[in-house]
Amino acid sequence: MTVDLQRFRDEITGPDEDARKAAVARHLTLTKPAGALGRLETLSTWVAATQGACPPRSIERARVVIFAGDHGVASAGVSAYPPEVTAQMVHNFVSGGAAVNALARVAGASVRVVDLAVASDLPGLPDEVTRHKVCRGSGNIAIEDALSRQQAERAFTAGTLIADEEIDAGADLLIPGDMGIGNTTPAAALIGLLSSRDAAAVTGRGTGVDDEGWIRKTAAVRDAMRRGRSVKADQIALLATVGGADFAAMTGFLLQASVRKRPVILDGLVSGACAMVAHRIAYRAAKWWQSGHRSVEPAHEVVLARLQLEPLLDYQLHLGEGTGALLALPIVRAAQATLSEMSTFDEAGVTDRTHDEDEPEP
Amino acid sequence: MTVDLQRFRDEITGPDEDARKAAVARHLTLTKPAGALGRLETLSTWVAATQGACPPRSIERARVVIFAGDHGVASAGVSAYPPEVTAQMVHNFVSGGAAVNALARVAGASVRVVDLAVASDLPGLPDEVTRHKVCRGSGNIAIEDALSRQQAERAFTAGTLIADEEIDAGADLLIPGDMGIGNTTPAAALIGLLSSRDAAAVTGRGTGVDDEGWIRKTAAVRDAMRRGRSVKADQIALLATVGGADFAAMTGFLLQASVRKRPVILDGLVSGACAMVAHRIAYRAAKWWQSGHRSVEPAHEVVLARLQLEPLLDYQLHLGEGTGALLALPIVRAAQATLSEMSTFDEAGVTDRTHDEDEPEP
Repeated sequence: MTVDLQRFRDEITGPDEDARKAAVARHLTLTKPAGALGRLETLSTWVAATQGACPPRSIERARVVIFAGDHGVASAGVSAYPPEVTAQMVHNFVSGGAAVNALARVAGASVRVVDLAVASDLPGLPDEVTRHKVCRGSGNIAIEDALSRQQAERAFTAGTLIADEEIDAGADLLIPGDMGIGNTTPAAALIGLLSSRDAAAVTGRGTGVDDEGWIRKTAAVRDAMRRGRSVKADQIALLATVGGADFAAMTGFLLQASVRKRPVILDGLVSGACAMVAHRIAYRAAKWWQSGHRSVEPAHEVVLARLQLEPLLDYQLHLGEGTGALLALPIVRAAQATLSEMSTFDEAGVTDRTHDEDEPEP
Repeated sequence: MTVDLQRFRDEITGPDEDARKAAVARHLTLTKPAGALGRLETLSTWVAATQGACPPRSIERARVVIFAGDHGVASAGVSAYPPEVTAQMVHNFVSGGAAVNALARVAGASVRVVDLAVASDLPGLPDEVTRHKVCRGSGNIAIEDALSRQQAERAFTAGTLIADEEIDAGADLLIPGDMGIGNTTPAAALIGLLSSRDAAAVTGRGTGVDDEGWIRKTAAVRDAMRRGRSVKADQIALLATVGGADFAAMTGFLLQASVRKRPVILDGLVSGACAMVAHRIAYRAAKWWQSGHRSVEPAHEVVLARLQLEPLLDYQLHLGEGTGALLALPIVRAAQATLSEMSTFDEAGVTDRTHDEDEPEP
């Protein structure tokens, strides 16, 4: 089995430009002053374009997929939490007690967690959680590869299969979530490598390490970047060298979602790192994405600039799980609703602005 | 009948500080790194404080009340739309075709419109829309008082009654909306007077007037401010002189909502102007408010600074109706859900950060 990255370059096209233009035109007919809904109007035209329909349909099955995995680098003291928390949080997601579950209920979304590389086995969990597992923990990227090439390909392919499973089950909007103690370290390394930044510039506090922890983490990021530099141009090798099975899977997931023409709301640092890798593989994929929020992690700013994404919210979140994306989901729903539910001036019998009668159409 | 403003100073206290502290403490026990939900945590503690309960209850009946009224100053060419649009939009609200209706459905809120001073009568509309009408249009504030003192007191009292009606019917969160061609002119005049700014600094484009319209509008604001300066210290006289029946009612509504301990999400310029007047009457009322968004209207920044409110969103909206507040309502719901629906570390069997064991409690 060899992953064919060229397929994504060939198959991913942008959202529907005609639907976008129709949405821009429709906004001028709705009962409000032109442009009065500001950024919500721009967002609504993106929704229309991703669906290829104006007015766009309401979002019926928004789905969060959390990619869970442990990272050997956690043993280097880069996190404020012990590695066993990854497995514990997988159980918390399944029983519905995590932040992502609470925010999903509010936003009308559902949550699936998938174990790609949790260090322990997770008996008693549903098959949809466990069936794509690649390994028990990814390697410590400061000193060794996270994965073999074969494992990276398996994980990447698992991500594409997960996207297919979700879309075949009716998902019309996807949110990538992450869980893994230590996972902001590979995220920082990937972003540092793909943006040619110094390790210190892309290393943040993650779950909240203290100054000494940050120094250890920055050293780990620097070591990983040194190891990964020679394979930058080969994205599967890059994910194997300084990523992890959860990262490889999320990257495949993002690309396949674009192949299948599904809009995605990115979350924070980890999904941002995978999005940067996916963007390297097929740059048009980014047209299918919004960034749900601006994370406090410094490397997230690098991602946003590279992908030219203006985050939908800035709430100083740094949790992952998909929480920042879920917080923004109701705004995307609101944008959709303006195009599909508002009356036009004609329908409502409301007089349009007086001077329009004298001016030519723009 | 004389309105007793002292009653509001006496009866309005701040939200429950004990509940707020309990919410701060509870966040430290929930399955996430401390502070990882950023601003959402601060917002959730406000929700708890307004309810006097930790964890807070979910918001079951969020209610938008749109205060509709015409303004004589519209005849001075301060708006891009003709005055008959006010009445047409009232019908649009009732039939559910306006932006506020679309956003309310997404956010799980309901909408009521109340005619305080629409220039025409509105036959065929429900009693809850029409029964508080004070006058057919408020006067042109550039050259005459908007209302007699008696009308201003009637309108203010109507606002307090509307708040009571809604809260008695179960409303647990209130959103003041506005509709009235020309209404950003009195809003600018009120904000200019209460902040001692120049007319040009508080006059914006409203529904989208061109440069000549803006010059006419600024002149009207300046004339109104000159007329209102001597009555600044008497808020009822101020509302009568440069406000309008819709403004007086919304001001009473905001104050009575605080008396009744109900949280409010303010919208944009018009609700901001009324909030500034209400704040002058009873400054503690502002503790019950969030600002849903940052309007593009320049005077809104003055309101936010004066009331020390950091808007929940910045989407370049300038529509009114309550739309900016509704766009932010799901964020308030999400904040509430974190406190009420997330598991604690103990409940979920998740290990808290390692170094907590060695450190004293903060």
